[in-house]
Amino acid sequence: MVGIIMGSLSDRNVMQEAADILNTLGVAYEMDIVSAHRTPEKMVDYAQSARDRGLRVIIAGAGGAAHLPGMVASLTTLPVIGVPVKSSNSIDGWDSVLSILQMPAGVPVATMALNGARNAGILAAQIIGTADETVAQNLARFKEELKAKVAEMSQQLLATK
Amino acid sequence: MVGIIMGSLSDRNVMQEAADILNTLGVAYEMDIVSAHRTPEKMVDYAQSARDRGLRVIIAGAGGAAHLPGMVASLTTLPVIGVPVKSSNSIDGWDSVLSILQMPAGVPVATMALNGARNAGILAAQIIGTADETVAQNLARFKEELKAKVAEMSQQLLATK
Amino acid sequence: MVGIIMGSLSDRNVMQEAADILNTLGVAYEMDIVSAHRTPEKMVDYAQSARDRGLRVIIAGAGGAAHLPGMVASLTTLPVIGVPVKSSNSIDGWDSVLSILQMPAGVPVATMALNGARNAGILAAQIIGTADETVAQNLARFKEELKAKVAEMSQQLLATK
Amino acid sequence: MVGIIMGSLSDRNVMQEAADILNTLGVAYEMDIVSAHRTPEKMVDYAQSARDRGLRVIIAGAGGAAHLPGMVASLTTLPVIGVPVKSSNSIDGWDSVLSILQMPAGVPVATMALNGARNAGILAAQIIGTADETVAQNLARFKEELKAKVAEMSQQLLATK
Amino acid sequence: MVGIIMGSLSDRNVMQEAADILNTLGVAYEMDIVSAHRTPEKMVDYAQSARDRGLRVIIAGAGGAAHLPGMVASLTTLPVIGVPVKSSNSIDGWDSVLSILQMPAGVPVATMALNGARNAGILAAQIIGTADETVAQNLARFKEELKAKVAEMSQQLLATK
Amino acid sequence: MVGIIMGSLSDRNVMQEAADILNTLGVAYEMDIVSAHRTPEKMVDYAQSARDRGLRVIIAGAGGAAHLPGMVASLTTLPVIGVPVKSSNSIDGWDSVLSILQMPAGVPVATMALNGARNAGILAAQIIGTADETVAQNLARFKEELKAKVAEMSQQLLATK
Amino acid sequence: MVGIIMGSLSDRNVMQEAADILNTLGVAYEMDIVSAHRTPEKMVDYAQSARDRGLRVIIAGAGGAAHLPGMVASLTTLPVIGVPVKSSNSIDGWDSVLSILQMPAGVPVATMALNGARNAGILAAQIIGTADETVAQNLARFKEELKAKVAEMSQQLLATK
Amino acid sequence: MVGIIMGSLSDRNVMQEAADILNTLGVAYEMDIVSAHRTPEKMVDYAQSARDRGLRVIIAGAGGAAHLPGMVASLTTLPVIGVPVKSSNSIDGWDSVLSILQMPAGVPVATMALNGARNAGILAAQIIGTADETVAQNLARFKEELKAKVAEMSQQLLATK
Repeated sequence: MVGIIMGSLSDRNVMQEAADILNTLGVAYEMDIVSAHRTPEKMVDYAQSARDRGLRVIIAGAGGAAHLPGMVASLTTLPVIGVPVKSSNSIDGWDSVLSILQMPAGVPVATMALNGARNAGILAAQIIGTADETVAQNLARFKEELKAKVAEMSQQLLATK
Repeated sequence: MVGIIMGSLSDRNVMQEAADILNTLGVAYEMDIVSAHRTPEKMVDYAQSARDRGLRVIIAGAGGAAHLPGMVASLTTLPVIGVPVKSSNSIDGWDSVLSILQMPAGVPVATMALNGARNAGILAAQIIGTADETVAQNLARFKEELKAKVAEMSQQLLATK
Repeated sequence: MVGIIMGSLSDRNVMQEAADILNTLGVAYEMDIVSAHRTPEKMVDYAQSARDRGLRVIIAGAGGAAHLPGMVASLTTLPVIGVPVKSSNSIDGWDSVLSILQMPAGVPVATMALNGARNAGILAAQIIGTADETVAQNLARFKEELKAKVAEMSQQLLATK
Repeated sequence: MVGIIMGSLSDRNVMQEAADILNTLGVAYEMDIVSAHRTPEKMVDYAQSARDRGLRVIIAGAGGAAHLPGMVASLTTLPVIGVPVKSSNSIDGWDSVLSILQMPAGVPVATMALNGARNAGILAAQIIGTADETVAQNLARFKEELKAKVAEMSQQLLATK
Repeated sequence: MVGIIMGSLSDRNVMQEAADILNTLGVAYEMDIVSAHRTPEKMVDYAQSARDRGLRVIIAGAGGAAHLPGMVASLTTLPVIGVPVKSSNSIDGWDSVLSILQMPAGVPVATMALNGARNAGILAAQIIGTADETVAQNLARFKEELKAKVAEMSQQLLATK
Repeated sequence: MVGIIMGSLSDRNVMQEAADILNTLGVAYEMDIVSAHRTPEKMVDYAQSARDRGLRVIIAGAGGAAHLPGMVASLTTLPVIGVPVKSSNSIDGWDSVLSILQMPAGVPVATMALNGARNAGILAAQIIGTADETVAQNLARFKEELKAKVAEMSQQLLATK
Repeated sequence: MVGIIMGSLSDRNVMQEAADILNTLGVAYEMDIVSAHRTPEKMVDYAQSARDRGLRVIIAGAGGAAHLPGMVASLTTLPVIGVPVKSSNSIDGWDSVLSILQMPAGVPVATMALNGARNAGILAAQIIGTADETVAQNLARFKEELKAKVAEMSQQLLATK
Repeated sequence: MVGIIMGSLSDRNVMQEAADILNTLGVAYEMDIVSAHRTPEKMVDYAQSARDRGLRVIIAGAGGAAHLPGMVASLTTLPVIGVPVKSSNSIDGWDSVLSILQMPAGVPVATMALNGARNAGILAAQIIGTADETVAQNLARFKEELKAKVAEMSQQLLATK
């Protein structure tokens, strides 16, 4: 239901977090390397066939002058989530953030924080969850766990004071 | 189906674009002023009741230290789209962009470009369109119109050379 | 008299400095984990009950899209001191600085330097010291010690030339 | 009870907002021009005599390489609130923000948003209000008015839709 | 010999300068609207057929998350010159500059200054001039004229002192 | 055919990548240390004699206030490619990027990404390739290899899932 | 005694302030247009002959990728004062500031604030004043006038309250 | 003849380079710790007595909200050279750079690159050298050595190719 793509294998350690949280939230996904700049034709095919292949959301991660999320968004009517990846030689991540965020009117990309692949997975689940009650309940349970973790940290803090 | 909220009436000239494009794309919406900093209780109520009131996506616009999108996202499992608004006394918009974009793991906000309310509306429709065929077709038609406009501009360019 | 809160246990190594200097300056404090995004209800309770529980100043530390200081300030009339914490995946700290600093008119947050928890403690003591002569004298003594340290460094410099 | 100072008469249109809100909140103040760079001796006198003259908070506004708030803070144990003013030839306000915000450990300045003089006045009242019940009640009333204004805007929005 | 493309007719007032200087330097060009995000298929065709249609350099201008120059460069082995255009809602031009400049290894874009279309035209001529003696001589003459203009300004300065 | 120059031997580990890729693409080059600030006369000689010595493109790398690429461009009509090098004490690379990119109208420098020496070599080959069929074919083959590498990474990803 | 140069006549409205204050402080000067990028040979001559022609300080103003101050400094042992000029198409002045400020070790440029030509004139006078008692006294008088102006503004403020 | 001051002993490893190059260039200096924020009175004394004690130039280094160079400049008519030091908790050095660079009209500080203490020493020598022939000759020799080092690096490069 969710396609996760990235420009290079080196982005995987960041993008794997999207896959992991989708697993936790009970949402199926596929994962592939698709490079806007090195395999533009594969990118066009991937994006244009996505809806027909049954995908409902696409998560695209890229660094530097990150064109993958925006180009995919130009080629499909599915919601596209962009993850700016802080690559080596990036100018502190500003390049990937701005290349993904500042899309022109008409072609939105749902931009996440720098290296925010985990949140990309959660947002994808939230989108699925607008029409899928099971996923919605998984999200509600996940939110409770976030709260529980803070309560736990709170007790740890008091204990170690 | 879509709730559009903003922190101040002064954000309306930007946020109205989200409403207009939702109209075009055949998606129902409501619109209200909800301020994270001036009406925190109203914000809590709005976000916590959103799913039960039938909303499926929330679009939140705010400027400066823009906390509305992120706080609403912390209080619901619906997808939340954030629109950084370039307000007066903003530091060139960086403050609202970063306050919305850089959400911690666990609580995503789908961030749009600075003043990108039109794209927020389109993304909301894309989310609805993952499970609503009519909206999906409206989006496909909209994409064709974008193309047609470029063809028109291309002819204008040749004509005025 | 001073409440120190932070969004995550990982902020503690920074925020402990606020507690330490309050100890030195003879000001009582409490410390807890309160997350704007993961425990919004606890945050609302904490802030709304703060004055009645006898707190006179709140110090709130947070990283990334740091909403804790501003949201607490929206829920109390006590002075709130915000400490931008440079977390991992932060964009060089700019996100937390701007999310805390650029509050809209009506809801101030006294913003400190990046990771400036020690100064947050001193400012809290200065606020207490506006009406508490003992704390004021402790602050005057502290200022003398700062001077003494420079004199000492000055002698070290001459000695090692 | 509150001293408002600024480096130049040209900062007055910004800094007057601090005076106005203090008036509204029932807090007495004085206002003067004190320049760190053009009248360093006057600045030293002003800061060193402030506590004895009965001031309890100092608000200092300055633009560019803004040294006034930090230097005054180095010369008194009173809380000092800094207002970065966006002057002409400023580099988008970054210079005044960073010159005021990034104070070294030991000498805090409570930094406000760019041109945030109104919030400086509110914070000064909050500090006074930690030990003055009347001012505290004025602040509570002020917070209610903020809420009321949002309710009003909300109705306007519905009316003009 | 040179193809000038831009994402929108609104970029023309900037991009026309490339055409004008190519005229001056005696280099033939064509000009069209090609949008990476609204007409991705046209963009693919344009770039892939460029060399065969006889183009030797492509100049591409775009604003915001500017993907046109980089995507064209991914689809041709011709040198591509990118012109970051400062559009409305741009974050001071940083978005278009970084989206064009920070291309990954393997796919270069020769990036010009913000709105630097005139220099794009000159660089295109310099590239043509590496193998075309007439154009090279036109460039040498153009450089002499730059010098002459400074001499003229120098005299004006002395005259008006 | 291509001259590669850099301001200091410490830039070599970055600039060597330009030489390596030129080797791969079958383009001859020379390499030297030429400093704008320490050997301005050598720089003038180098640039003014470049065309007559048979060079067709110059690649210049420099860090900090990087004047070498722009100054060389002012002294020749050959295309000049600038590589911003991220040196120690650089302000995150912004200084070298902006010193090279923001050339005034009349004197273009084809600017590469931070540390983008490999792309400088490829662009130089593309320029040569506009009039040299062998180099053009080498570039086409190189593009195929980029694609092949992505296919390989794609298989690796599937294998390790 | 002081040479004031600038890259273009359009910089004059900024640079004239250097001349005016030198007049006030009793220091002789000359003024000319010298462009690093359009008249590199004139720049070399100007800088290399400066000391012998009796100049003791050079003030150089430039915008964008501002190479004039640094290149002149590379060609003389006289102190060179650089004035970053905020030109049109500048990226908010950052380009000229960083191109002048971030000089490599060995070749200093005394950098002024953005558009800080008046301060360049004062610094030039301070340099002359290290060995010229009359100029030193003029500077002391000038400092008194700065103080007097603040006293005057202080009275105006009280009068209009 | 030259006074070198810094806010903290931790700045010494940077500031020592100013002392070392002054030694090389035959210019006498003194060195001390003077903190604007911790020892404001010592700073006032140091700056006001500097000319009478025979100093002709002051070099001041500081990090973060760096007020030392500007405040010293406000208290003397000697030329003051500011060295922004990249301290821990600095926001990438931008804070110290802007706090020193962006001085208001009337009070110049000759700003060096980030950590540019070596250049501060050279500039101080250039200022002394405007009226001291021996120092001027040392500077000329130093410039020759810079050139020689490049020639040496050039040979190394050829040797290791």
